[in-house]
Amino acid sequence: MRVYLDNAATTSMDDRVVEAMIPFMKEHYGNPSSVHSHGRQVRSAIEKARKKVAELLNASPAEIFFTSGGTEADNTAIVCGIETHGITHAITSPIEHHAVLHTLEECAKKGKVNLSLVEVNDKGEINLNHLHELLRQNPKSMVSLMHANNEIGNINDLSTIGNMVKEYEGFFHSDTVQTMGHYVHDLKNLPVDSIVAGGHKFHGPKGSGFLYVRKDKKIHPFIYGGGQERNMRGGTENVIGIVGISRALELAYEDMSGHQSHIEGLKNHFIELLKSHIPGVEFNGLSEYSDKSLYTVLNVSLPPSEENRGMLLFNLDLHGVSASGGSACSSGATVGSHVLRALNHDNERESVRFSFSRFNTKEEIDYTVDKLKELYSITV
Amino acid sequence: MRVYLDNAATTSMDDRVVEAMIPFMKEHYGNPSSVHSHGRQVRSAIEKARKKVAELLNASPAEIFFTSGGTEADNTAIVCGIETHGITHAITSPIEHHAVLHTLEECAKKGKVNLSLVEVNDKGEINLNHLHELLRQNPKSMVSLMHANNEIGNINDLSTIGNMVKEYEGFFHSDTVQTMGHYVHDLKNLPVDSIVAGGHKFHGPKGSGFLYVRKDKKIHPFIYGGGQERNMRGGTENVIGIVGISRALELAYEDMSGHQSHIEGLKNHFIELLKSHIPGVEFNGLSEYSDKSLYTVLNVSLPPSEENRGMLLFNLDLHGVSASGGSACSSGATVGSHVLRALNHDNERESVRFSFSRFNTKEEIDYTVDKLKELYSITV
Repeated sequence: MRVYLDNAATTSMDDRVVEAMIPFMKEHYGNPSSVHSHGRQVRSAIEKARKKVAELLNASPAEIFFTSGGTEADNTAIVCGIETHGITHAITSPIEHHAVLHTLEECAKKGKVNLSLVEVNDKGEINLNHLHELLRQNPKSMVSLMHANNEIGNINDLSTIGNMVKEYEGFFHSDTVQTMGHYVHDLKNLPVDSIVAGGHKFHGPKGSGFLYVRKDKKIHPFIYGGGQERNMRGGTENVIGIVGISRALELAYEDMSGHQSHIEGLKNHFIELLKSHIPGVEFNGLSEYSDKSLYTVLNVSLPPSEENRGMLLFNLDLHGVSASGGSACSSGATVGSHVLRALNHDNERESVRFSFSRFNTKEEIDYTVDKLKELYSITV
Repeated sequence: MRVYLDNAATTSMDDRVVEAMIPFMKEHYGNPSSVHSHGRQVRSAIEKARKKVAELLNASPAEIFFTSGGTEADNTAIVCGIETHGITHAITSPIEHHAVLHTLEECAKKGKVNLSLVEVNDKGEINLNHLHELLRQNPKSMVSLMHANNEIGNINDLSTIGNMVKEYEGFFHSDTVQTMGHYVHDLKNLPVDSIVAGGHKFHGPKGSGFLYVRKDKKIHPFIYGGGQERNMRGGTENVIGIVGISRALELAYEDMSGHQSHIEGLKNHFIELLKSHIPGVEFNGLSEYSDKSLYTVLNVSLPPSEENRGMLLFNLDLHGVSASGGSACSSGATVGSHVLRALNHDNERESVRFSFSRFNTKEEIDYTVDKLKELYSITV
């Protein structure tokens, strides 16, 4: 058996997404900027995709810009948000994804902004009083706080944060890569200025993404070139990526609550099995609590074990289970997770992020727990 | 009959490229940064692709970075080349692609560089004496001059320019989007610091590209995030794009001279037919001369005609021929071509860029000339 429990890193593509993309690899090859019929049929597919995304998110098509992924979209919102609106101070947290954290650190290094980090506690919860204080001292800040953490799954309350940022006339960007396609985003009612998506996190293609920017907070382009994406992003459009991400989002919204209850069931089953079979098991962040964390992520902290020290992920892999230590984006690096470090995680314990999709099954969870028991020499 | 003569805007994908991509849409979905087996098999495909591209271009794999396309690659080389190497002056020409021109104009607007434009004559030829003078006055400049012009097809001599830039210790970036996959680039012997590719210009996928940066001219990232692309570009890799562009380049190199002679044959046939059937026909830039222009591009200037004034492309489209007025990247806009404007093109005449690929046939050229004759009411 081969079990894939690393869906927060990337998901397999839905067959129906692949199906939607293939005609644009084989027949419809025109450049969407070309005005002849080869181009027009492709242009129409892109605008249909944009309309679909906007409709699902309760936004306007003019607020949706397709990008090469969530990271480019985060960079665009942050760098161009700061430049366009003359922002001189930024606030983020130490447990943001590197697409946000490194981008803001770079802006600070270049002297564009002063950067403040809001405090988080050992469970990864943002100190909202501290955020309020930072905003009071630095009105008109760029605030970038993620919707849900990709490693520990903690969900932030975007409404509370967004209203606070609004009160101090800031720009509120939220990295929604982990929640897009898994939760409903109603942008008419959510007080955010920009959010992002990466198609491959919800069964769409890698290399596809989009950026939402609220109408009244327009920003200038990040990538300059032709007039594509209403002059917001130069470069011939990744047509198959755009068709794919919009189809993936459509499918995600079609039965979101069905998928949620299936995956939540798996996660709860997993938690119960772990609690009853692995003595000393703990959960990082809030990932144990279904109302406070992504239903797709469970970050498990296992007791110290000589046999598995620094080898648990490798051992799981050998036993047929793909999981990760943290963000895939840094899992190749030998440095540990910056998120767990910020949570003062006990380095003697082994942490594993298991993340689920609608294609996972109860049998796969049972298998994974069996393998963990084997690795921890638990015979009961 | 439907004829596609807009291959400089984009090309149809080769079936063998599609075939190479599909397994990565269906089976191999891991995140290349994941260390487990799902990830490792995909990582290996990416590194194989990088090695293949490097090998074909006589470069080292560590000098090749995959991007979302030629435009992002141009932006990266220019913006990050300037920032990393502390460059304060840039030189380009008025007939560069907007991916270069707008990017440099933006750098100038932000006060990062002073920008000089090298003179071009009415045939689009760069005044090399002027370039030399600009370099003498501004050593250590960022020089961005394209390998071949996307509208008129003029080919620049990269060796001459590159050696001149070297003499004055500049950084030489060349937008090679139109020549990649159509001409041999031998990077051990070509005096350039960076060049780029967009996969869809040589029968690969849209949304794929790469940037070559010479080892000793390293630059910092343009997009910040995870440590992908050896810390040079954050964001989960567009795996299908990478597999596709490398396969497309491989196919291009497999029979480059065969394709060149086929396409050159079409172009010469086209020129002869036009000259003998359309009185007053002219050719913009150097596109008439096969040794001085892209074999893939012919920019035709047709005499003034009441029936076709401002409508020639539209009329051709109605008659089944897809061609363009200039760059696809701005062809949707109502403004005319900045390239033809720089060449003092007579606005009374109609200009059409016809561009060819290895999939075009002699019959398609004959058909196109017949339609042009019809549109110009030429009965002989």
